[in-house]
Amino acid sequence: MDEKKNSTHELLWQSRFSEPFDREALLFSSSVHVDRKLYKEDIEGSIAHVTMLSEEAIIPVEEARLIIEGLEEIEEEISSGALEPQWEDEDIHTVIENRLKEKIGPIAGKIHSGRSRNDQVATDTRLYLRKAINDLTGSLDSIKEVLLEKAELHSKDIIFGYTHLQRAQPIAAGHYYLAWFNMFHRDQQRLTDLFGRVNISPLGAAAFAGSTLPLNPRRSADLLGFPAIFDNSIDAVSDRDSIIEFISACSIIMMHLSRFAEDIILWSSYEFGYLEISDAFSTGSSIMPQKKNADLAELVRGKTGRVYGDLMAILTVMKGLPLSYNRDMQEDKPPLFDASEATVSSLKIFTKMLRNTRLKTDRLKELTRKDLSLATEIAEYLVKKGLPFRDAHRVTGKIVTLSISLSIPLPELPLEKLREISELIGSDIYDSLTPEASISAKKTSGSASFESVQQQIETAKTKLRGH
Amino acid sequence: MDEKKNSTHELLWQSRFSEPFDREALLFSSSVHVDRKLYKEDIEGSIAHVTMLSEEAIIPVEEARLIIEGLEEIEEEISSGALEPQWEDEDIHTVIENRLKEKIGPIAGKIHSGRSRNDQVATDTRLYLRKAINDLTGSLDSIKEVLLEKAELHSKDIIFGYTHLQRAQPIAAGHYYLAWFNMFHRDQQRLTDLFGRVNISPLGAAAFAGSTLPLNPRRSADLLGFPAIFDNSIDAVSDRDSIIEFISACSIIMMHLSRFAEDIILWSSYEFGYLEISDAFSTGSSIMPQKKNADLAELVRGKTGRVYGDLMAILTVMKGLPLSYNRDMQEDKPPLFDASEATVSSLKIFTKMLRNTRLKTDRLKELTRKDLSLATEIAEYLVKKGLPFRDAHRVTGKIVTLSISLSIPLPELPLEKLREISELIGSDIYDSLTPEASISAKKTSGSASFESVQQQIETAKTKLRGH
Amino acid sequence: MDEKKNSTHELLWQSRFSEPFDREALLFSSSVHVDRKLYKEDIEGSIAHVTMLSEEAIIPVEEARLIIEGLEEIEEEISSGALEPQWEDEDIHTVIENRLKEKIGPIAGKIHSGRSRNDQVATDTRLYLRKAINDLTGSLDSIKEVLLEKAELHSKDIIFGYTHLQRAQPIAAGHYYLAWFNMFHRDQQRLTDLFGRVNISPLGAAAFAGSTLPLNPRRSADLLGFPAIFDNSIDAVSDRDSIIEFISACSIIMMHLSRFAEDIILWSSYEFGYLEISDAFSTGSSIMPQKKNADLAELVRGKTGRVYGDLMAILTVMKGLPLSYNRDMQEDKPPLFDASEATVSSLKIFTKMLRNTRLKTDRLKELTRKDLSLATEIAEYLVKKGLPFRDAHRVTGKIVTLSISLSIPLPELPLEKLREISELIGSDIYDSLTPEASISAKKTSGSASFESVQQQIETAKTKLRGH
Amino acid sequence: MDEKKNSTHELLWQSRFSEPFDREALLFSSSVHVDRKLYKEDIEGSIAHVTMLSEEAIIPVEEARLIIEGLEEIEEEISSGALEPQWEDEDIHTVIENRLKEKIGPIAGKIHSGRSRNDQVATDTRLYLRKAINDLTGSLDSIKEVLLEKAELHSKDIIFGYTHLQRAQPIAAGHYYLAWFNMFHRDQQRLTDLFGRVNISPLGAAAFAGSTLPLNPRRSADLLGFPAIFDNSIDAVSDRDSIIEFISACSIIMMHLSRFAEDIILWSSYEFGYLEISDAFSTGSSIMPQKKNADLAELVRGKTGRVYGDLMAILTVMKGLPLSYNRDMQEDKPPLFDASEATVSSLKIFTKMLRNTRLKTDRLKELTRKDLSLATEIAEYLVKKGLPFRDAHRVTGKIVTLSISLSIPLPELPLEKLREISELIGSDIYDSLTPEASISAKKTSGSASFESVQQQIETAKTKLRGH
Repeated sequence: MDEKKNSTHELLWQSRFSEPFDREALLFSSSVHVDRKLYKEDIEGSIAHVTMLSEEAIIPVEEARLIIEGLEEIEEEISSGALEPQWEDEDIHTVIENRLKEKIGPIAGKIHSGRSRNDQVATDTRLYLRKAINDLTGSLDSIKEVLLEKAELHSKDIIFGYTHLQRAQPIAAGHYYLAWFNMFHRDQQRLTDLFGRVNISPLGAAAFAGSTLPLNPRRSADLLGFPAIFDNSIDAVSDRDSIIEFISACSIIMMHLSRFAEDIILWSSYEFGYLEISDAFSTGSSIMPQKKNADLAELVRGKTGRVYGDLMAILTVMKGLPLSYNRDMQEDKPPLFDASEATVSSLKIFTKMLRNTRLKTDRLKELTRKDLSLATEIAEYLVKKGLPFRDAHRVTGKIVTLSISLSIPLPELPLEKLREISELIGSDIYDSLTPEASISAKKTSGSASFESVQQQIETAKTKLRGH
Repeated sequence: MDEKKNSTHELLWQSRFSEPFDREALLFSSSVHVDRKLYKEDIEGSIAHVTMLSEEAIIPVEEARLIIEGLEEIEEEISSGALEPQWEDEDIHTVIENRLKEKIGPIAGKIHSGRSRNDQVATDTRLYLRKAINDLTGSLDSIKEVLLEKAELHSKDIIFGYTHLQRAQPIAAGHYYLAWFNMFHRDQQRLTDLFGRVNISPLGAAAFAGSTLPLNPRRSADLLGFPAIFDNSIDAVSDRDSIIEFISACSIIMMHLSRFAEDIILWSSYEFGYLEISDAFSTGSSIMPQKKNADLAELVRGKTGRVYGDLMAILTVMKGLPLSYNRDMQEDKPPLFDASEATVSSLKIFTKMLRNTRLKTDRLKELTRKDLSLATEIAEYLVKKGLPFRDAHRVTGKIVTLSISLSIPLPELPLEKLREISELIGSDIYDSLTPEASISAKKTSGSASFESVQQQIETAKTKLRGH
Repeated sequence: MDEKKNSTHELLWQSRFSEPFDREALLFSSSVHVDRKLYKEDIEGSIAHVTMLSEEAIIPVEEARLIIEGLEEIEEEISSGALEPQWEDEDIHTVIENRLKEKIGPIAGKIHSGRSRNDQVATDTRLYLRKAINDLTGSLDSIKEVLLEKAELHSKDIIFGYTHLQRAQPIAAGHYYLAWFNMFHRDQQRLTDLFGRVNISPLGAAAFAGSTLPLNPRRSADLLGFPAIFDNSIDAVSDRDSIIEFISACSIIMMHLSRFAEDIILWSSYEFGYLEISDAFSTGSSIMPQKKNADLAELVRGKTGRVYGDLMAILTVMKGLPLSYNRDMQEDKPPLFDASEATVSSLKIFTKMLRNTRLKTDRLKELTRKDLSLATEIAEYLVKKGLPFRDAHRVTGKIVTLSISLSIPLPELPLEKLREISELIGSDIYDSLTPEASISAKKTSGSASFESVQQQIETAKTKLRGH
Repeated sequence: MDEKKNSTHELLWQSRFSEPFDREALLFSSSVHVDRKLYKEDIEGSIAHVTMLSEEAIIPVEEARLIIEGLEEIEEEISSGALEPQWEDEDIHTVIENRLKEKIGPIAGKIHSGRSRNDQVATDTRLYLRKAINDLTGSLDSIKEVLLEKAELHSKDIIFGYTHLQRAQPIAAGHYYLAWFNMFHRDQQRLTDLFGRVNISPLGAAAFAGSTLPLNPRRSADLLGFPAIFDNSIDAVSDRDSIIEFISACSIIMMHLSRFAEDIILWSSYEFGYLEISDAFSTGSSIMPQKKNADLAELVRGKTGRVYGDLMAILTVMKGLPLSYNRDMQEDKPPLFDASEATVSSLKIFTKMLRNTRLKTDRLKELTRKDLSLATEIAEYLVKKGLPFRDAHRVTGKIVTLSISLSIPLPELPLEKLREISELIGSDIYDSLTPEASISAKKTSGSASFESVQQQIETAKTKLRGH
């Protein structure tokens, strides 16, 4: 092993110990490969802390200036790849501090005045979460926009509505897209609520008990754009609630996407054939030349597992830990980063793919005209003629059976055949037996009717960015 | 099997089918043993629906009166045990409808006018969730009260603060209790936000596409105390977000309880010996007469697994389901009920137990006076004397080693021994070497100092019921 | 509260305690509603223990006889419903012991000689697991039988094979059923391996340290049919591995069923229309008379969530528990019982439903003849004519595009059109362009060819009960 | 975007498509950053496949030689870092094939003869799993060795046995270490059983239906050391059971480690003080100089969450997927690799740390002599004197209370005081009131006695490598 390297990569806490930390143990416990993602947040937090320290005259202004300049250079070095964080430095905080020491000497150590890695990492995480929430919220805006466009484009088109994956009733296609719109809108609300709980500064809690220095936590919070600060220093360093709540919100988003993906996959199958994904967002097979697969939708559906797993991971990590900080909590970042990246990338690619799908409206128009899903109309027709619903249901069942056995679509069954089953039926029944009539008959607000879709579109416009 | 019984328990949907539903299949798919818990909500929802139907002249007032009276009787019958729901009825909705039919004849069927089991069960679930959230919120109020009492009682007492389960620094005991207070306060906020998303009526969405009847969904919502109604009928029947979000909130509550339970178990161990749980909340051993176990805390910690499992269950159920309703969703209720009951009962018993614990303040006072956790004070003393922090840390490390090797507590080490290690040390060091001095030296807001605890208590009082 | 009741329901461990256990705490910690399921196992275990005690002359033969007779009566009382276990008794073990005391007086207490609830409950659980594994193994036998029958029945029929839910290539239908056969066969192997780890007696480990009485653990193991006994008493009472491994095996079974259910649901959709589930195993809609839903398959798919949740529950319970027994472990039984019952009932009903499905072989024959999934045959034809595979793939892509644009099935495209794309094509190409030719062309063992299916059927017969 | 680059990185399946695959979509679906870990397995598999192809005269021997040499060079290039896989190549298989094409021209394409990425990736995964299982098995050997050493070293030392984290009875220290030995032994058995299910070659299943080429799957299996081949080609490409079973086995290992970690953390706390971890495996605090934390144990406990999450991830991915291959399955590798690496690294570092712990046997000897956990001995003494157990328990309870109130250890209570409570007590009671007597009194096999530990050590030796 590289002795010289080891001596450079000094660890902060070894003063009382007779032996150096075991190299394999250091490799095992190093988090540099994970938390290097936080270098910007870490530097941002340190600059705010040092600014506050100098304003409160805890460290000289000149030293603060040197530290801040150094930190800004380091950010540039890491961004550009000039400085490659090494695992021997244990974590990104130490990477930065050690590099700062190389630049400006022992003054570097003052970035630790009144601060511990416990409140430092809690601050970094909240800065990361704010960005992640904003990213997600923006991506949800985009998918909502596409869905609203689709709803408007297809406000008069007709598709099948399904329950149990069986054709149930024809509906306005716009209604379908607006169902998804509402789900993603709720996802945004959830994130907005969470944002309020995230946007609180833990900086100043130090190791867990606060500091003996006359820090001004409100000032450093201000500098970082946090409108509030922690109420209790123990809670500040040992709370991981917002990570859990965030991954839970991601899980619900992914659940929605997995359902949408399922529909996309089904609808672009040969058997359904309702949807065409453009070639730029489909894949083929290296040995079956006819194939056109909805791989992106499948991958998004698959990544749902990943995010659920991340949720279970962080919940397990936190179960049963005594107060306050425990090293187990270092394992909070892999699931956080993974869930955040998987969700935002899934949302983005799904949105782009969705924009590049085409609903086969002509085919759907044709199919809905001949389908058994008009059976409900017969039942309702009979109810209007005075038959109790239960009986109407039974009569309709017979007509459905007839349609199947004769292979004649419901709207084309001859009147005399219908009247053999029920004399209540007259020629006016054929007026109800179109998808358009079926859809227009829906009366309730929020229903699948064309009129309702128009109203929903107006509502959706106000919700577009109004989360 | 009982043929006659089968004929009584008529299923609603079999008109077109040539064979009766298989008995084993019915047993498998029956949800009566689970959803019977919803009988009050179901009847409440039906009464609101029927009231609206009669107000809108969809059904005659007199029939509505008969139906409502019948439903009220049935609620009483189930409550009193006079009517025992049978699994053959498939679900609680059918139990109630079939019983109503026995009472008032075919008019009973009209409770289905413009309604499907899909929006009916969605309504019942939201009614249940509202109660469950209110129950939890109330239980969180109670534990917050106990914690505030404990914080006030122990605002001047001293305990050890821990990181990594190692004594870190002495802190005001009240600070510790307030850390938990803050966690449970956040739990309430999360539930409050969720309540807004739950408190929306899905009634009127029917199967998934709305109804052809001129329903007034706003009126039935009003009658049920829902301030808003669904925007989209597909979403209304296929959305299970609030169940997931609720179980996620329960999971975070249980995570908090599992951590608190861990501390209770540790602190009431012989080795720690900081806490005495009263006999009424402890258990003994049938073969080891000296034992006194914190079984309740262990059980609460164990039930965390249950609630995490419920979260994973509902997430898995919903993954990849196509729109709109699918029968899989029937599996939403076992995890919902289980998580709700496990969480509220855990919170209640934990609160009661907590009220019946006694902090051994005298023992803690004694222990903290002699402990190595005062070492930080030495380091800070040296920094004030001008030593760089890193060096102060190193010097203190040597003093700690000395204290251990001589078996003399830090505050009792003779001055000459200390000065052998660093000449910066004077006799004034002993002023800092008390837990009181250590705690009082904390300057930041939200810190572990006695003064901070007083402020936190004031803040907590405003948060007590102000969620 | 019922004082007299409370005095009857004496708890075993309260001798040193000044206050009685709190009633709510008892209700919270009582497991009678869960572990009453174990009453047979508990009595079986006690009888074996007492028999051994009397054989080893630890208790008099006559007393043993009284105890055993009493226990046998109690088993009968619980089975018949004459004795209803009460929650006040805390657990089923206490229920039985208290009842025994009522019957035969203080001698009853001797069933505890050299035994603790820790090894008692571990024994009961292993007895339960053995039965549960045998139940599952038997159910897997049944589904394997049905699958083998289906494979034989359809060994010459043709269906589409899918990847990415796109028609890929025609395959022998029998091949499809045998794929499932292999999955369930692996599930059996997994259970068989687990059985060996379950089939070890923990009886004699007492609380965790063994007993001071000269017990004969091998004898009680023999009486219970356990071929081996524990090696280490701490491990014996704190091990829950086999519960986890069992629920993990259940999870894999449910995963298989969820996939099979997905196919059943798809294939019985109108769009696919490959499969007819008999009416006795389908459900309809109360408002849409034309519908025929695969509810059972949906429910089975939904119950997958439940079993995954159970797995996560038990894993969470055990995480981070110190040795040896902790009360958290009481929470092992709800997930165990739930997973076991959900899995075995799902398997059974799925098997029965599967037996009552009919593959629409004529329709499939028709569809496969005209499908683009024959494209691979064209590519392979061209390779045989000497074209590099990559080029053959490209040429075939053009032919597929032509077929789509002209709406002419591949096998009906005129030769001159084909030759315009590639002159390598001759009239012999039509010989390959049938599903039968495509399937028969498969050469590898285990492939989708008719010949391979025959061989697989022979292999499957040997595996039918040979797990 | 880099057009030229894109043209180099040709995708295999785009022949029929009019537009190139979207760059962002490619980035999203590329798995190179994950599956590059499989490059050795992929090349090993390809060499075996090509060797078989040439032996079966499907491709010329000379071409096979060129391909194999090329592949060997590529392995060297990747190992040495000379070839850096690029994400544009979509997956590691394409990376390798494209590089091979650069080296030897179009012949490279022949590695795909009779093979698809579906059976290729299934083969790679099984090769990876075999190595991963062997790694884990080896690591389990190591920890078992250390545990056996510790058991032998401490076969005569005395520690407390715990239930409910309360001192229960004194036990031989060796017994404690052997409890862990048994858990890790079971972990090995589980892996061994799994190995048999992993060790089956899927190569030759092609896309999912087998190949039209006269492949010899047994030969390629032989070359890769697989003793068996797949029975069914659909199952071969769509089976992920062994990944789930592997991560489940990892989860149980991590559960064991998390419990052991909990004990290590507790025992090295100041309050317990039973264990000293050497400095090389402990960490300190940058601001609290007295601290010595068991960070490695905490990290291992934390990583349990990660592995549980991986299990939930893969189970979710597979839930409800139709047959056969779906792109979701690409998400199998992140949890597989993560669980494998987390478990093996945790086991290794934990073993090394364990080797570097020292049990404080003198302190434990002292503590056990004076402890209430000898109370069981008094109860058993009284039973031997003829008192019914229940009464003996009650009497002992009084003696325990006396000991606490007088602050006199049980073995030092004066005889007259004891006789005031029960006249059955004589001076011979003091013989039983030592930890040694208590431990030696245990009679059953597998118990905590010194004699049992000797026997267990002999058994353990036979199990050391005999899994």
